[in-house]
Amino acid sequence: MKEVGETRNVANEFHTRRVVAFSETDMAGVVHFAEFFRYMEDAEHELWRSVGWSVVQRQPDGTVLTWPRVHASCDYRSPARFEDVLDIYVSVARSGRRALRYAFRFQLDGRDIATGTIVAVCCVLENAQLRAIDIPEEVLARLAPYRTDLNGATQASEKTNGGKDQAG
Amino acid sequence: MKEVGETRNVANEFHTRRVVAFSETDMAGVVHFAEFFRYMEDAEHELWRSVGWSVVQRQPDGTVLTWPRVHASCDYRSPARFEDVLDIYVSVARSGRRALRYAFRFQLDGRDIATGTIVAVCCVLENAQLRAIDIPEEVLARLAPYRTDLNGATQASEKTNGGKDQAG
Amino acid sequence: MKEVGETRNVANEFHTRRVVAFSETDMAGVVHFAEFFRYMEDAEHELWRSVGWSVVQRQPDGTVLTWPRVHASCDYRSPARFEDVLDIYVSVARSGRRALRYAFRFQLDGRDIATGTIVAVCCVLENAQLRAIDIPEEVLARLAPYRTDLNGATQASEKTNGGKDQAG
Amino acid sequence: MKEVGETRNVANEFHTRRVVAFSETDMAGVVHFAEFFRYMEDAEHELWRSVGWSVVQRQPDGTVLTWPRVHASCDYRSPARFEDVLDIYVSVARSGRRALRYAFRFQLDGRDIATGTIVAVCCVLENAQLRAIDIPEEVLARLAPYRTDLNGATQASEKTNGGKDQAG
Repeated sequence: MKEVGETRNVANEFHTRRVVAFSETDMAGVVHFAEFFRYMEDAEHELWRSVGWSVVQRQPDGTVLTWPRVHASCDYRSPARFEDVLDIYVSVARSGRRALRYAFRFQLDGRDIATGTIVAVCCVLENAQLRAIDIPEEVLARLAPYRTDLNGATQASEKTNGGKDQAG
Repeated sequence: MKEVGETRNVANEFHTRRVVAFSETDMAGVVHFAEFFRYMEDAEHELWRSVGWSVVQRQPDGTVLTWPRVHASCDYRSPARFEDVLDIYVSVARSGRRALRYAFRFQLDGRDIATGTIVAVCCVLENAQLRAIDIPEEVLARLAPYRTDLNGATQASEKTNGGKDQAG
Repeated sequence: MKEVGETRNVANEFHTRRVVAFSETDMAGVVHFAEFFRYMEDAEHELWRSVGWSVVQRQPDGTVLTWPRVHASCDYRSPARFEDVLDIYVSVARSGRRALRYAFRFQLDGRDIATGTIVAVCCVLENAQLRAIDIPEEVLARLAPYRTDLNGATQASEKTNGGKDQAG
Repeated sequence: MKEVGETRNVANEFHTRRVVAFSETDMAGVVHFAEFFRYMEDAEHELWRSVGWSVVQRQPDGTVLTWPRVHASCDYRSPARFEDVLDIYVSVARSGRRALRYAFRFQLDGRDIATGTIVAVCCVLENAQLRAIDIPEEVLARLAPYRTDLNGATQASEKTNGGKDQAG
């Protein structure tokens, strides 16, 4: 099982809850494994809304900023069942100049039942074409409360460490 | 239980098969009721492809013809289970000048297990806006093998009976 | 478009809200029509929880009471989009001795965008077999706040009108 | 991007095709990333059927053998769109005594567009409880045509190398 967040500042995780829906279960009586990826995405989008932004954000110049996924993974420890109330915790870190890496933890009654990762690339949508760009500073600033790559450094000093482009 | 197809020419139904997927089942061990609507839509789209068209069809003038749904219903008689092979039969009839009404039958091992209906309106997509239009004659002609509103009449005479606009 | 609720006591509708998820949209940029059936079901199950019950309820005798669907339908008036906040209203009426008929209204910014119906049959699950039964009085009493078949009559007098079995 | 299959015998991959459904697309006009996990699972189950088995297999002793997932991941290179015909290739390797690791490749028009992994643990379902067991020899033998952990060795000699339990 992959360890998530050894360097994570737990206080900085975004938290949300959801109730398992009947249609999310399968004939084994538990939540189907693919549903956890929707759970992750919905939590990510709620995090965006909580900082006054959207995962599909129109810019002042009319272009749209969006985040296609280049990687998604999930490790499953225990199942979830109909009407279980899941606690979902999200943190995020810059991955190079153009991508964000989200880390997700799923808890049920205080126990970890799954962990997951999504890597998404910052793109501008113009004329139905996607073009990868460096993550705007405004976006990084808005996400600061949930970032695990700041390590107590100020955002200004963090900027000087940029330039690695691991994804996208 | 609604009766489907008293006036239907059975020979004219489009037929397709699909195997029930694991993710389509729910904790009751059967296919979740909402999945039947995807089954209907997928069969409808396969019918379109079989007549050399698409439910999202680019026209020579650059516009796109598409079919938003205004009604969908399903009546369930018996459940379907993982790895069941479903036979799906589709027929279609004009509903006024601008809409099509699809009738679906689901069979498992020769028994009817469900019937359904979808009503969709003929629309042109221009500048991200939908505008309802009369169904083009070319479309009606392509669908002729699966239409139940022709009643042995020639297509030409059927055209003079048009003008009722029940939907859209 | 089917009219919902001419005899409905509006004050008695169950109300819930949900935010449209990204994965619920399709390439037309709007919520896929089949998702409305999940929305209906989730609202129905939330209604059950609000009256201290569950749509899959273990009985004191160890059997499980559950509600397979025999009919579902939806009429669509206007689309919903990503991050729209939908208001969903639910009422319920007895349909014969063994079934419930739910009526759903979807609103966006105060406008009706869709209406739907689900008919579900009261069943006991024993040894992996479903057996239809008359709806227990306790269940009807719990649902009373959201029922549209009481018409100001007391529940006792309503009971004497029972016996019609339209579904199941 | 993770490299798949350096040691893989390409001739041994299971191959299937599927047409992208409308409901699998999202408002970005492409297949939603979570759908790839259903595509993987459906291909896995088709592989099982092709060797005369099922992912949910009743044993002669009445117990059921099944394979809960402990890990799933996907790397995305290019999008897929409505009515694209995807080629899906699957191979499998033993991961310890109790788990299987599946590798998936998605191609569109001969180009790789995504790769994925699922790790599933061999379990017996008894009295609604799952219990992990060593993978039966019959199962390993049936999967032999698609296994990448045999390395030209005979199946018999491979058996003597067992005993590592990396998952489950």
